[in-house]
Amino acid sequence: MYVDLGSALDATPGVSRDSLERLDDQVATAHDRIEAGRNDHDHGYAALNLPARVDLDAIRSAVAPFADAEAVLTVGIGGSGLGAATLANALAGPDDPDAYVLDNVDPEHVARLLDSLPLARTAVNVVSKSGTTVETLSNFLVVREAMADAGVDWTDRTLVTTGESGNLRQLADAHDLPLLSVPDGVPGRFSVLSSVGLAVAAIQGHDLDAICAGAADTADGLSGSLFETPAYAYGAATYALAARGATTNVMMPYAERLETFAEWFAQLWAESLGKDGLGQTPARALGATDQHSQLQLYRAGPREKVVTLLRPTHRPDRPIPETDLDGLSYLGGSTLGDLIDAEFGATEASLAASGVPAIRVEIDGVDERSLGALLYGMEAACVLYGELAGVSTFTQPAVEWGKRAARGLLGGGDVPAAEAVEDRASLRIDP
Amino acid sequence: MYVDLGSALDATPGVSRDSLERLDDQVATAHDRIEAGRNDHDHGYAALNLPARVDLDAIRSAVAPFADAEAVLTVGIGGSGLGAATLANALAGPDDPDAYVLDNVDPEHVARLLDSLPLARTAVNVVSKSGTTVETLSNFLVVREAMADAGVDWTDRTLVTTGESGNLRQLADAHDLPLLSVPDGVPGRFSVLSSVGLAVAAIQGHDLDAICAGAADTADGLSGSLFETPAYAYGAATYALAARGATTNVMMPYAERLETFAEWFAQLWAESLGKDGLGQTPARALGATDQHSQLQLYRAGPREKVVTLLRPTHRPDRPIPETDLDGLSYLGGSTLGDLIDAEFGATEASLAASGVPAIRVEIDGVDERSLGALLYGMEAACVLYGELAGVSTFTQPAVEWGKRAARGLLGGGDVPAAEAVEDRASLRIDP
Repeated sequence: MYVDLGSALDATPGVSRDSLERLDDQVATAHDRIEAGRNDHDHGYAALNLPARVDLDAIRSAVAPFADAEAVLTVGIGGSGLGAATLANALAGPDDPDAYVLDNVDPEHVARLLDSLPLARTAVNVVSKSGTTVETLSNFLVVREAMADAGVDWTDRTLVTTGESGNLRQLADAHDLPLLSVPDGVPGRFSVLSSVGLAVAAIQGHDLDAICAGAADTADGLSGSLFETPAYAYGAATYALAARGATTNVMMPYAERLETFAEWFAQLWAESLGKDGLGQTPARALGATDQHSQLQLYRAGPREKVVTLLRPTHRPDRPIPETDLDGLSYLGGSTLGDLIDAEFGATEASLAASGVPAIRVEIDGVDERSLGALLYGMEAACVLYGELAGVSTFTQPAVEWGKRAARGLLGGGDVPAAEAVEDRASLRIDP
Repeated sequence: MYVDLGSALDATPGVSRDSLERLDDQVATAHDRIEAGRNDHDHGYAALNLPARVDLDAIRSAVAPFADAEAVLTVGIGGSGLGAATLANALAGPDDPDAYVLDNVDPEHVARLLDSLPLARTAVNVVSKSGTTVETLSNFLVVREAMADAGVDWTDRTLVTTGESGNLRQLADAHDLPLLSVPDGVPGRFSVLSSVGLAVAAIQGHDLDAICAGAADTADGLSGSLFETPAYAYGAATYALAARGATTNVMMPYAERLETFAEWFAQLWAESLGKDGLGQTPARALGATDQHSQLQLYRAGPREKVVTLLRPTHRPDRPIPETDLDGLSYLGGSTLGDLIDAEFGATEASLAASGVPAIRVEIDGVDERSLGALLYGMEAACVLYGELAGVSTFTQPAVEWGKRAARGLLGGGDVPAAEAVEDRASLRIDP
């Protein structure tokens, strides 16, 4: 992962080179704290030790029964689904088993997906650390019933990924199901480089060693200076820009295969840093497509954003055929890759010309090693940002209230929060 | 489309009932201006006349040659693709022809998509008003070549949607291709209710009359008061909240089939209103999924946002099977629909409890008539917002610079903007 801050220096909001140099002392202090947390395997910091500690053989062994799978269905929500989806959508080729994630409780969507799957050849990976996540367990019950209805023995097709105790572990023990443990001390949004994110990649046949090697390279390169560490350069610059008014961070990959990465990043950034009135709202975009949708706003709208332009420097290419269509002869001899690179460069220059801050992030390609480096790099960037901002990076207190309220509404106990739903103010306008 | 502003009244930022009443005089003035623009068929305002003016028979006739299509591929970017994709993803059932949109120039994605399509049974709809959109024309050239390579006569499989003159019209005339006209005075992002958005829906067999009837109902219901007009209630409230600091508008539908609608909305909102330093940055989310990704930030992050919670009040449902799993017995007798509704209510209450403004938008169901009402309603909301803000709603000047630069980089003329790309500042951090 390479980071270029050039387009953030002289922008509005912007962070000057001098400011970055002053900030670098705080980066050194934060780095020491991160290293201490890693050494002690403290909650959250432990995620940054995964590349050296994850047991890849256990993962390969747990998925071995599913070598015949034509499809793999992850039943999990938030951090229990997004890491697997990110790797699958980035790495899967046309001949790999199709990967799906059931991460919503939309009844029609669930029904349609189950109708479309070859259930007898589908591996189901149910993922919930606590074993009580209501969306995941509800969906799993529906999937299990659909398998029974189709005459498929669900115990032959199910892998369980969960914590050391609880519902799902009991279920796995009772039916002797393949089982993977969610590692201790690793919040879901930081779990992509553990069994949670890697099981699907293993079923699809991707090179887990290369993913972890890319991440380990990045881990080994963490130093006490943002000028030597791309991940810290990204974390420190976004922190400094946020403090100067960039409350939105647009993540805009120029590769369709990285579209889900932007969703993964959005969870990492929002849930880790959105605290105490601080943080950045992630806006997911896709280059070059969203130049025709969002660029007008980025250039001329509110000055509350930084745009992260992400691209692979190498990718398979395709020539644009010669044409005699009027006004298009200049495309002759060009490729679609030339075109998307020209669009990337033009957008970067366009933002710079209007003084909108942008950060360029590049990876070598959309491959295992580069993905490992990118995912780990963004996790390290996020942890650094959290240290600089002084927030509680590894917790998510504000989602708990809503979870209790939903449970109360469904009759799961006497929950005062549920009553608040009924007491809400209303100003309804009907057609 | 029903709108409830209750959760925006007593929030931070918030807009009180008194403020809305004061604003209503401006709404009346803006409504007069909108009506005058519609009467004169002025640029942009003409889009609000489409429900009464679109020629559905011409659309049905142009797509008649593709009755055998198993797939329909729209080649178009921005407003030339998003409307068709929104309708297809909302309305298509499992037995309808699959709809795809080629709206990016990622070479690998283009190649994989073409490899996966049954080209001899694919209808290609190439959409560009000017006939010179570089991404669209490049992709079309690649598609045409792929068809030739597969022994398919592309002139049998291609529908052209374009303006009154230019490249694509010449091509259609030369090869006697089915042809649809992009209506005058309608910017791409407002074209979903024209041939641009409706051709794919016609090929998929959806009820175009019902789409237009839903839109026409909304058009007929526009009045000079936000308290009588849901679309204006939405436009006025988001405008007032933006003026009070809500520079981000989260669009969060609770239905998988409306996920693309959120993208369509993001273009409409960003490109129309992102001007003069004003506007709102759209953030796309999906309920209930993103409660496990973004809700922490919405509750506890920067107070620069309003959350739009959108749901259908009716949808097909699916029971959650009974279970003896520990702690889940409270789900017994519930459905996935109950669960997603409980999550919706809990999120709304959770935001209200922490004083984050939210607007509830409801439609009867994800069907043709409701979609027509929703799409038209959001267009009218956007136009009203633009009037209140005094911006040039129907132009997109800030995207032109980048287009010229990209063209220059590819050798299409001597463009000073292209040189700026090379001259950019750099502060690169390598691993």
